[in-house]
Amino acid sequence: MAETSAGRPDATDYLIASKECEIQILEQLLRMGQLVVCISHLVHTLQRERGASNMYLGSRGERFGSELQTIRRDSDQHTEQFHQALAALNLRQNTVQAGSRLLNRIGYAVHILSDMERLRDEVGRQAIQAEAATRVYTELVQGLLAVVFEAADAAVDPDIARLLVAMFHFMQGKELTGQERAAGAAAFASGHGGGEVSPRIQHLIEAQERCFEVFAGFVDPASWAVWRQCQQDTGLIEVERLRRLLCTSNERTAFDPRLGQRWFEAMSGRIDTMQQVELCLAARLEVLCSGKLSAARDSLAQHCSVIDLLPRFQQGQDDAFVVFCSTRTTVEHELTGADCYHHLSPQLGRSLIELLQSQSCRLQQMQDELNNARAALEERKVVERAKGLLMTHRRLSEEEAHKLLRRTSMEQGRRQLDVARELIALAEMWT
Amino acid sequence: MAETSAGRPDATDYLIASKECEIQILEQLLRMGQLVVCISHLVHTLQRERGASNMYLGSRGERFGSELQTIRRDSDQHTEQFHQALAALNLRQNTVQAGSRLLNRIGYAVHILSDMERLRDEVGRQAIQAEAATRVYTELVQGLLAVVFEAADAAVDPDIARLLVAMFHFMQGKELTGQERAAGAAAFASGHGGGEVSPRIQHLIEAQERCFEVFAGFVDPASWAVWRQCQQDTGLIEVERLRRLLCTSNERTAFDPRLGQRWFEAMSGRIDTMQQVELCLAARLEVLCSGKLSAARDSLAQHCSVIDLLPRFQQGQDDAFVVFCSTRTTVEHELTGADCYHHLSPQLGRSLIELLQSQSCRLQQMQDELNNARAALEERKVVERAKGLLMTHRRLSEEEAHKLLRRTSMEQGRRQLDVARELIALAEMWT
Repeated sequence: MAETSAGRPDATDYLIASKECEIQILEQLLRMGQLVVCISHLVHTLQRERGASNMYLGSRGERFGSELQTIRRDSDQHTEQFHQALAALNLRQNTVQAGSRLLNRIGYAVHILSDMERLRDEVGRQAIQAEAATRVYTELVQGLLAVVFEAADAAVDPDIARLLVAMFHFMQGKELTGQERAAGAAAFASGHGGGEVSPRIQHLIEAQERCFEVFAGFVDPASWAVWRQCQQDTGLIEVERLRRLLCTSNERTAFDPRLGQRWFEAMSGRIDTMQQVELCLAARLEVLCSGKLSAARDSLAQHCSVIDLLPRFQQGQDDAFVVFCSTRTTVEHELTGADCYHHLSPQLGRSLIELLQSQSCRLQQMQDELNNARAALEERKVVERAKGLLMTHRRLSEEEAHKLLRRTSMEQGRRQLDVARELIALAEMWT
Repeated sequence: MAETSAGRPDATDYLIASKECEIQILEQLLRMGQLVVCISHLVHTLQRERGASNMYLGSRGERFGSELQTIRRDSDQHTEQFHQALAALNLRQNTVQAGSRLLNRIGYAVHILSDMERLRDEVGRQAIQAEAATRVYTELVQGLLAVVFEAADAAVDPDIARLLVAMFHFMQGKELTGQERAAGAAAFASGHGGGEVSPRIQHLIEAQERCFEVFAGFVDPASWAVWRQCQQDTGLIEVERLRRLLCTSNERTAFDPRLGQRWFEAMSGRIDTMQQVELCLAARLEVLCSGKLSAARDSLAQHCSVIDLLPRFQQGQDDAFVVFCSTRTTVEHELTGADCYHHLSPQLGRSLIELLQSQSCRLQQMQDELNNARAALEERKVVERAKGLLMTHRRLSEEEAHKLLRRTSMEQGRRQLDVARELIALAEMWT
């Protein structure tokens, strides 16, 4: 922030600082966007590594050995890029801007990542069950997605926040597809239906649909078009056919042994297709952040040149008269609705007040739009917390908790969000 | 943020950074609290200066001349302290933390403050109407209160945010008392009732009550006790008696010429008594901020010593086993509700995960509490904006806009907040 000759910042300095603040935030958002893109790539390879590890363990090390090595190298490369993107954020200098929650999430993800070699070693030695290995990968992916969630929640630009909300929900949906692949692969490998397979697959399909719905509400048109395309992909025919077999199976169903391989390939194809949407989202995010940043820089330059034209306020000038601002905008009305007469040195008074008011007005609009994007994240958070409470205290599975919540809200004719909120508010009465 | 020997921050570094981030935010909140206290003092002297300027102009310069000089010196002193508190915030270095909106508000307040000498000069030369002078002071006070509002809205610690919400609403209520004093003084000076006097006074009384209701919902017990005391002050008897005269007056009412002086003194006494509450709130704010800060520093020290006890993760360690975290907390459940098995190096894995989870849990709780405090500010903002829209587009006074909003919400049996929100949402359809 610049200083006046008197050494004390004046109103124009604060106006400029307010603009500079936006620029700094956008610069960091641009780098945060790059981190999110790296996470998208890393998650994708981890999903592949999880799938291949599963197949490797399931085949007792007979198949997928060399694929696994290739995929691991990909994962390592993306892990390295993730760390580089983290380094570019320079969180050492930007602790406060990053925020405690984001830092904490990053710590969690970095922690699990640091233990990957151990896991891989055990997979290689077949010293771990497929299910346990899957859990670690899933947890790591969730840890990385939690970073994207916080990045979306912390973004102060509404358009960027919207796109991050879309991106988080798409990544979460894609991850659920990955979990569905694992659940189906395990069922086909076992050779028969029954157990939890059918409800679990149905639950995962529904959960994916919910994610894609939120995604649809916030996505940009270009990425949306790629997603529509993705939904027309002929590979979906095989996916849907095999889904039907899984969902209609029971204890007496015997699966053809070749189905496992076909399921795995169909679902892997599906996941790869979905990655195209993420790539499109990533490109859009980059363009959006850069565009916002240069717009903010232009706006600052413009403000600076207007301010240079304003005569500096001179004490003792005696041609003061009352200036009436015709625009009744935010500064006054938010708080009082008071009349807006200014008895100030006329030119400086009027023009500067207008600049301050237009900045104030714009910031308020941004806040309103931001609140909409955050509401989607808030809803997710509340519903997931309510489910977590039900899972812990009533010892339900995630599917059961979700169904209970949905049934209750349908029976009572209320939104799931409201039911979830009250469940949390009254949790102490039950526990 | 510290670095590991490898040069790349690990999970413990991020955990510590998350704690350090809280500390930095609290340090800045402490200084922000000091700015708010300065604003409280400055607003108080500006209210006195406004009142004395009014009386001086009303008496054609015959009375209040020397009082005015004394009060102006007080105001100058508090203006100086305000600038010092601003300087201590070092917004040059902390632009991003301050946020665009706060910077913009400060710019607005600094701008009007910079023009005070001109106004005083005109008051001294009786070259300005009492009403016009009052408007400038009122605008300045509102500009300063807007800074308090943003400070409350930007505070990320829930307890501090609550106290700032209480403080903002109390200051706003006290300012409305000041406006009531001015309105009553003008009526008594005119010698008769009628015009807008009675509804205006009634409106100001109601508006004060609304402010004190919100204040009551967020205040600490000690300041609340001072306020209760303040409500038992015998000076209120005279205030209420004179209020009754004003509220029941009409065009035919002739006021005793001595009432003006008595009203001014009674109301000034009232305002001075109210300042005791602000002093108590200020003291509480100081204690709260310092306490939170030292608690956060202790917690960081504690975390650091726990982390020092943890064996650093060593590659190749082969006694790994699955660690089961019994606490199903936020990190997982918010996003997936997934089971929380950790297949990690046991000690580091378990303890660090627990530290990360407890930090995550705590941050979530803080966010929940914060949302409650912010809801009060949001309500105020929405209702004031709806009133502003009605004032602009239907050319209503603030009282009329308020009454229309209240009547509509009563007739429809809905909250004012909901009606206001829909009014704003549908504003484009009307304008």
